[in-house]
Amino acid sequence: MNQDYIKADNWSIIEESFDASHVRSSESLFSIGNGAMGQRANFEEHYSGDTFQGSYIAGVYYPDKTRVGWWKNGYPEYFAKVLNAPNWIGINVTVNGEQLDLNTCKYIEGFKRELNMKEGWLSRTFKATLPNDVQVEVSTKRLLSLDLDEVGAIHYEITPLNTDAEITFQPYLDSGITNEDTNWDDKFWDTTAVSHLSHQAFIEAKTMKTDFHTCTFMESKVFISDKPALVVPNVKTDFNQVSFSYASAVKKGETYNIQKFGGYIVDRNHDKSKLVDVAKEVLKIACEKGFNQLLEEQKQAWANIWKIADITIDGDVKAQQGIRFNIFQLNQTYLGKDSKLNIGPKGFTGEKYGGSTYWDTEAYCIPFYMATKDQKVARTLLEYRYHHLDKAIENAEKLGFKNGAALYPMVTMNGEECHNEWEITFEEIHRNGAIAFAIFNYYRYTGDYSYIPEKGLEVLIAIARFWQHRATFSKPKNKYVILGVTGPNEYENNVNNNWYTNYLAKWCIDFTLEQIEKMTTEYTSDFSRISEKVKISESELEQWKAVADNMYLPFSEAHNIYLQQDGFLDKELITVKDLPKSERPINQKWSWDRILRSPYIKQADTLQGFYFFEDQFSDDELKRHFDFYEPFTVHESSLSPCVHSIQAAKLDRMEQAYTFYLQTSRLDLDDYNHEVHEGLHITSMAGTWMSIVEGFGGMRIRANKLSFTPKIPKQWKGYSFKVNFRNHILKINTTQSQTSFELIQGNDLEILVNNKTLLLKNKKLQLVISV
Amino acid sequence: MNQDYIKADNWSIIEESFDASHVRSSESLFSIGNGAMGQRANFEEHYSGDTFQGSYIAGVYYPDKTRVGWWKNGYPEYFAKVLNAPNWIGINVTVNGEQLDLNTCKYIEGFKRELNMKEGWLSRTFKATLPNDVQVEVSTKRLLSLDLDEVGAIHYEITPLNTDAEITFQPYLDSGITNEDTNWDDKFWDTTAVSHLSHQAFIEAKTMKTDFHTCTFMESKVFISDKPALVVPNVKTDFNQVSFSYASAVKKGETYNIQKFGGYIVDRNHDKSKLVDVAKEVLKIACEKGFNQLLEEQKQAWANIWKIADITIDGDVKAQQGIRFNIFQLNQTYLGKDSKLNIGPKGFTGEKYGGSTYWDTEAYCIPFYMATKDQKVARTLLEYRYHHLDKAIENAEKLGFKNGAALYPMVTMNGEECHNEWEITFEEIHRNGAIAFAIFNYYRYTGDYSYIPEKGLEVLIAIARFWQHRATFSKPKNKYVILGVTGPNEYENNVNNNWYTNYLAKWCIDFTLEQIEKMTTEYTSDFSRISEKVKISESELEQWKAVADNMYLPFSEAHNIYLQQDGFLDKELITVKDLPKSERPINQKWSWDRILRSPYIKQADTLQGFYFFEDQFSDDELKRHFDFYEPFTVHESSLSPCVHSIQAAKLDRMEQAYTFYLQTSRLDLDDYNHEVHEGLHITSMAGTWMSIVEGFGGMRIRANKLSFTPKIPKQWKGYSFKVNFRNHILKINTTQSQTSFELIQGNDLEILVNNKTLLLKNKKLQLVISV
Repeated sequence: MNQDYIKADNWSIIEESFDASHVRSSESLFSIGNGAMGQRANFEEHYSGDTFQGSYIAGVYYPDKTRVGWWKNGYPEYFAKVLNAPNWIGINVTVNGEQLDLNTCKYIEGFKRELNMKEGWLSRTFKATLPNDVQVEVSTKRLLSLDLDEVGAIHYEITPLNTDAEITFQPYLDSGITNEDTNWDDKFWDTTAVSHLSHQAFIEAKTMKTDFHTCTFMESKVFISDKPALVVPNVKTDFNQVSFSYASAVKKGETYNIQKFGGYIVDRNHDKSKLVDVAKEVLKIACEKGFNQLLEEQKQAWANIWKIADITIDGDVKAQQGIRFNIFQLNQTYLGKDSKLNIGPKGFTGEKYGGSTYWDTEAYCIPFYMATKDQKVARTLLEYRYHHLDKAIENAEKLGFKNGAALYPMVTMNGEECHNEWEITFEEIHRNGAIAFAIFNYYRYTGDYSYIPEKGLEVLIAIARFWQHRATFSKPKNKYVILGVTGPNEYENNVNNNWYTNYLAKWCIDFTLEQIEKMTTEYTSDFSRISEKVKISESELEQWKAVADNMYLPFSEAHNIYLQQDGFLDKELITVKDLPKSERPINQKWSWDRILRSPYIKQADTLQGFYFFEDQFSDDELKRHFDFYEPFTVHESSLSPCVHSIQAAKLDRMEQAYTFYLQTSRLDLDDYNHEVHEGLHITSMAGTWMSIVEGFGGMRIRANKLSFTPKIPKQWKGYSFKVNFRNHILKINTTQSQTSFELIQGNDLEILVNNKTLLLKNKKLQLVISV
Repeated sequence: MNQDYIKADNWSIIEESFDASHVRSSESLFSIGNGAMGQRANFEEHYSGDTFQGSYIAGVYYPDKTRVGWWKNGYPEYFAKVLNAPNWIGINVTVNGEQLDLNTCKYIEGFKRELNMKEGWLSRTFKATLPNDVQVEVSTKRLLSLDLDEVGAIHYEITPLNTDAEITFQPYLDSGITNEDTNWDDKFWDTTAVSHLSHQAFIEAKTMKTDFHTCTFMESKVFISDKPALVVPNVKTDFNQVSFSYASAVKKGETYNIQKFGGYIVDRNHDKSKLVDVAKEVLKIACEKGFNQLLEEQKQAWANIWKIADITIDGDVKAQQGIRFNIFQLNQTYLGKDSKLNIGPKGFTGEKYGGSTYWDTEAYCIPFYMATKDQKVARTLLEYRYHHLDKAIENAEKLGFKNGAALYPMVTMNGEECHNEWEITFEEIHRNGAIAFAIFNYYRYTGDYSYIPEKGLEVLIAIARFWQHRATFSKPKNKYVILGVTGPNEYENNVNNNWYTNYLAKWCIDFTLEQIEKMTTEYTSDFSRISEKVKISESELEQWKAVADNMYLPFSEAHNIYLQQDGFLDKELITVKDLPKSERPINQKWSWDRILRSPYIKQADTLQGFYFFEDQFSDDELKRHFDFYEPFTVHESSLSPCVHSIQAAKLDRMEQAYTFYLQTSRLDLDDYNHEVHEGLHITSMAGTWMSIVEGFGGMRIRANKLSFTPKIPKQWKGYSFKVNFRNHILKINTTQSQTSFELIQGNDLEILVNNKTLLLKNKKLQLVISV
């Protein structure tokens, strides 16, 4: 743990004093978002201290020219950057002409910041003494509406405590913003128009190169002691700024407040010639509702989310806070409304990594969205990749593949690759397999086969083609091998026959062949449509089959385990516990060659395969592989502990499972990696959810039924979670002595608990005593 | 061949017409240098067309901040850039107020550029009609003095042909220059003083960060019809420029000429407070000699070089020109006077690659310098690495090595690594072996053992330590393995057990142990001095021996060959001749992963080992390995064909040997790789020399004797070369029917010819009839 200033609380993230050194960190942790936009928790009023300003619009990015030491053929020309968007939250405040700035105040008392996760708002209160000795009390509340996802609202109030004062609110829009993360200090935004009308203002700006047209807008109302103050603002416009000044004489003890409504209208969703008109309509709706009604609606919208998604933990407030924080942030980042969006690794909380889509989505996030939302949301995530299929085929062509083989990008915003380390970009090809696996996983969980004939099969075929072409027939081995890859364990590069990759490749082909088989009898018209489109032939299928049937899987007879890759046993096999603490984390202490020739595993690799394909291995096989690989795993990826937690729980090693769980659940709140100031680890938050539901709860699909093997860490009194399964909502509540199952919504449902069938009836609690 | 505008000539490089599209290319090809400085063949007068300005001072570099996409621990912070130095050659010319500029002239006739390799000067003549219709004839000659290596001289004359004209020579110095190759557009030079006195001027400038202090200087004299013209110049100085204007009224047909002397004084060689004083002394000497005497001395100095280094080829002017161009450029680049200098891959002809020292020096260049110069020169090259030993130990420490293990840098200027691709920087570690091999090679050729006790053993020990630490004991193989390396074939990265690397590592340890053994009896005081310094123990030597004795060498029983690396036979083994032409060169057509998983070899790798350690393998082994690996070799490095040429000659495949030879000898003159405009391939030129001397001539050291097995391509009437061997100079002259051996200098010498002893007596020709 590297920080512990966040107060433990069941439902809120709370900071109770002002510390300039925490500002960047808190800006990340208190971030708010509504799936369509999001922002770091920057102050509304001017702050002259160290801060990392960030407002982000989903799907609006900039293709930053690539920086690379030595160019390789096939590298993308650019890297899609998450883009800091124009600022609409700003409200500068002056008191008797002196600017309110927490960095220059003489005293600050009673500072409290709260991110209320239950209701979806961010607030701040403090008393501050300005350099001119006027003491004021400030209280703010801010939200980004879930229902009207183009608008946000701010309530900002200030009370002079020790004197009457002339107070000015100066709400503004600013498109003169920059990115912290830029390769060449390019300008990202081009402001095209600044306009205003009455209490409204609009800045139209477009992104350079990508030409996203946006209108950033605002409207403000001011009140004295809750009565509308009829102040005519002074308006100042500049090349990329517009600000209104609302000045009032405020009596000591009287409260001057402003409600500001603002947000973005983007040509991703609207005709670009009508952005200002749409902004006016949105403002009309928002202003008519006013801040309080928007807040009430926000509470209701979040209540609807929590109704299915909440996990309770009894007897451990910090764990409770941690898991809710993860669920909250995932919902702030992605809500599944727009099939062109995805789950960025930093969500709306920072710029790092760029791009929005990694294989994290398929491997870690889809299970969360599948079980906590309508199944349409997961389907939308699958469709995202379907929409990118042509680009994935182009991407493979750049690397020399033909005949419709697809290689999905490692990192993408619009379907094009935007990463450029050869060992990742060109070689971490297992990502293709995760995309196929997600199609299977969706069908397995939802029972909805329709996606495969409609769209999924095309993706599967293109992926199977890739694997067939990518495999090489080895004469000495008399098998197909896959040379030169990087597995999920990125601490190995350019290895031959990474077991996970080979196994997944074989599985992808087999699964695709099965679907083709099924469709030729059950979905003949879909199959002939697709077959015509992608020109598939019997002889091609035979080639695939030859590869799948003869795929080489490295195995050690001596250890009776599959080998992570060819030659793994040639390494010096010293386990992590025998590594001096001073050498860790190895990615900060060791040079890359040393990491590469070491046996150390960054995140589950062979074990990731055992996680995906658990049913295809015995518990004894899992145990052997877990016992062999886990001791070499350094868990230097935020995506690592969750898989190990789930497998440890399955192996009845609850202490170990709990330890892994702790590493993931408060990763950001406790800033384990010294980097929370850069933003949050959004995608790994889904892994935390999996650790509880699949790990402790033991949730699986077995024989087309929902199945549980509930366990509980001894540190907790109890925990509960809910899942949505094929239009049923179940609540599972486990204590140290028993688990109760309740069907909150839906018709009777047979589930498996500890491999025994249990019939759930609507609203009737079923108890199962712990073994 | 991609260009053929260079006229074939035995001794000169000649261009006979002006073509703006050839300017950059010719600037490279006509480059001049004297080991201490060098310059591209930029015009003296202003040229507004496309040009690549470059003047370089040996050993003066700039640590350009590294550009890299994704940082890895252990990467150097900077990349040593070859630095464009202040311009001293500039002489602007105006004719009746109009600037002479070949890019704007109405007509240009009789343009001829000549680089006279025999005498070491560059000239240019042309007639040009200016936009103002004045026709002038211009003739220039330029040299960089070999004897006074801080100075160069220019003779520039102009004759108005169709009218009297007011002509101004404007010689200048300019330190406001930039690099084409810069990562961050940093400024590299800081001008500290601009001064002038009478006809002399001085610019003092220092490099940013590296703080090399330099004084760039000039002095000019003007003449009309060879009589000194008493023109008082107008002087103009600027922040980083100084220029003199010598204006004269010149009659039609009269010649106005200027002699300009200039160059650099650098604090690498002089007290930095006295640079201007030294410049004045140098100018005094140069001006007193005058251009003509400097030219005569230059001819004599080059005659001395050619006396030993020349190779003649009878019956093929282009081949003759090619080999002399290579020998000439190597001598322009490095003369062995300064142990802090080395042989940059582009010499003084361009900026690309940066750094000055690659393993090219030890593997390719040392044999050339050993055989064509006093043996001190080769020893100086060995000492260069000795001076860098501490830095090599530091470099290894950064990568986690301890106890005095050294890893020499892949690319360096001052001993520090300045390359940053992990697969090269951290993994192409065989370079260490080439440095040890050169110590052996020097002793083998010169018979001078003294270098080893004096300095070499320390280097050998540090290298042996590196190999011992770098090897890993593999339990399954019960052998020591070397994991994660890049061999000389850079089209394989991060492979295990590269045969060349493993063999070389074993050899390094064995050779070092032998030297220690020898020194403990024959050089006891040297050994105890070194032993004390580096703290070597018996038990450490045993550890080394264990590694060397049990080094794993990948071998295929099926093919009866050593394998380039583990798993090589798993590749799809399609030979290069079955690869479509459209796919080549693969480094321009294929993505990096495809190159990596292909069997294609960039340059000799296993065969490089057979080249170094020829005596340790039978001819039959060589034949088997050559037959296996050569067909997969794409020769996409300029260093590749020479080794293959030598081995093909040894295997009596003279047609193939000749084909490989052609690929190397006119690489730059015919611009095979479309890149001569960036500069020349200096280090590979030594490979061309080896192809003739070691390939066709079959020169080796056998049983401590010089040995030859002369062969001749059927395309030539004859060829001859000379070598310096242990204070003997031999001339070997081969025709289609016989070879003659002549001892030009030195006492009687027994040599081996076709394995038979031949006694050479001073100045007596010995004939051997071809078999």
